[in-house]
Amino acid sequence: MKINKEIIAKWFSTLQDAICHQLEQVDGKGTFQEDKWERKGGGGGVSRVLTNGAIIEKGGVNFSTVHGETPYKIQQALNLPNTDFYATGVSIVLHPHNPHVPIIHMNVRYFETFSRMPLHNEATRQPVKWWFGGGIDLTPHYIDKDDAAHFHQTLKKVCDRHDKAFYMKFKKWADDYFFIRHRNETRGIGGIFFDHLNEENGKTREEIYKFVQDVGSAFAPLYCHFMHKNAAKPFGENEKNWQYLRRGRYVEFNLVYDKGTKFGLDTNGRTESILMSLPPMATWLYKHQPAQDTDERETLQLLKKGVNWV
Amino acid sequence: MKINKEIIAKWFSTLQDAICHQLEQVDGKGTFQEDKWERKGGGGGVSRVLTNGAIIEKGGVNFSTVHGETPYKIQQALNLPNTDFYATGVSIVLHPHNPHVPIIHMNVRYFETFSRMPLHNEATRQPVKWWFGGGIDLTPHYIDKDDAAHFHQTLKKVCDRHDKAFYMKFKKWADDYFFIRHRNETRGIGGIFFDHLNEENGKTREEIYKFVQDVGSAFAPLYCHFMHKNAAKPFGENEKNWQYLRRGRYVEFNLVYDKGTKFGLDTNGRTESILMSLPPMATWLYKHQPAQDTDERETLQLLKKGVNWV
Repeated sequence: MKINKEIIAKWFSTLQDAICHQLEQVDGKGTFQEDKWERKGGGGGVSRVLTNGAIIEKGGVNFSTVHGETPYKIQQALNLPNTDFYATGVSIVLHPHNPHVPIIHMNVRYFETFSRMPLHNEATRQPVKWWFGGGIDLTPHYIDKDDAAHFHQTLKKVCDRHDKAFYMKFKKWADDYFFIRHRNETRGIGGIFFDHLNEENGKTREEIYKFVQDVGSAFAPLYCHFMHKNAAKPFGENEKNWQYLRRGRYVEFNLVYDKGTKFGLDTNGRTESILMSLPPMATWLYKHQPAQDTDERETLQLLKKGVNWV
Repeated sequence: MKINKEIIAKWFSTLQDAICHQLEQVDGKGTFQEDKWERKGGGGGVSRVLTNGAIIEKGGVNFSTVHGETPYKIQQALNLPNTDFYATGVSIVLHPHNPHVPIIHMNVRYFETFSRMPLHNEATRQPVKWWFGGGIDLTPHYIDKDDAAHFHQTLKKVCDRHDKAFYMKFKKWADDYFFIRHRNETRGIGGIFFDHLNEENGKTREEIYKFVQDVGSAFAPLYCHFMHKNAAKPFGENEKNWQYLRRGRYVEFNLVYDKGTKFGLDTNGRTESILMSLPPMATWLYKHQPAQDTDERETLQLLKKGVNWV
């Protein structure tokens, strides 16, 4: 079957349903609150946010399909003057209560651009460019090397099914992307990140779509594994305070560097949906340094690029 | 006396001393922890941070003098190719414990750019451009209209002593600058903001310097007034939760929009000094709306541009 943007968008929407269902099942208490919204310039989305679950303290699973004139900044950055755009995707950030459960983020997206034509016929317009992007990355408050290996091995398996070169390439991309330059720290243990995947990469649109579907489908089992495994681990005030500090770093990354956040704010997206990624509570302490020979210090020392977690 | 950048920098340094002294006096418990730092590309600074005072929960009063090659982004933005820069200033953010005491920010700065000359003589090089910038703005968690009037009246008096047109102009500039576009909210009740003040504004460097000194000197009495007046007011969990939410907005402004923060991070400034502006603890709740007929709702409705607070 020939795919098109409507088919992709519909699949993303079913992915949102499936992920929300699985997360609610494992959480056991929280339920997603749904908000449908429309975008002034065209399109809209369905935001689902879960607050104060048994395991998830605050989590958002968003689906959106937006279109209209390509924002000026993006026309410039991608050399796409006088174009319209169409973008659809699923975006997730989950913040757990327990500091031994990691923060997770996933995004899968599809993008098309079109020449601007007055009186164009939406149904027959062909895209000038199309591409897929996405990724999954994990931000443990405390790095457990076995968990990190499981996470990366799972992503490697997903990648390997589609192209043996994908994992190494997209793992490095994640290291470079999820990097807090002003702290010289990675956001977490990375994962995979990819963008502008199109036929120039030697794959058909169908092949890339299958890969992206595989990434999307890997998300819920992966995170549910960590929820099952770690949500009952004991923790105290010390661990909670460290979690708040790490969440502060998460805020710094998302507001200073994250391109999805910038894209959303620049395209007048729905602010509450874009910023659902921000944690329920975060702290900043001046010059905080964890003491020698602590788990916190060990985690901090592992927040660097190029670690082979597999 | 003819002023120059060294005289200005020295005065800024004494301003830092005076402000820290006055704040410690009124706080009564907290003392500033000092860190001297050097910048790789040239210059450095003295950061002073007070944590867990009686009134101030976290506050920074920074002085810095940095110089070197003008960062590429700034060369582009200001059309200053092939230049070196010199920047000195004092930057302050104070986060109080009590939600009835406002957050305050002040910055005064002086900037010079020079043609790049190999083997130049530092002592005799004349600037291509020079300018002053700065401002003071107030972010009450709860807006008290009398306090707001006192704040703006004080700033108006300072401005009026130098130019009767300054207050209206710089007040509007603050409204436009301290604006959280994606929330359609001002950060607080504004104040004054000005930038690129130089001889093109019909004033000599000496005259503008006197104005900037006057702004700097107004800071401590202004904030000490609010500390004295409001620090003993009772508050509970409700007020504290609202404070955390408003601090979240403060984080959003500083990391998404604030040019000083961007400049600092882009010029590889000292991260801990730049981000001392971030609050000790902040929260984000999805779609939070204060209930009708509450003080929180009233404050939210006043967070807009163009209010005449005087």
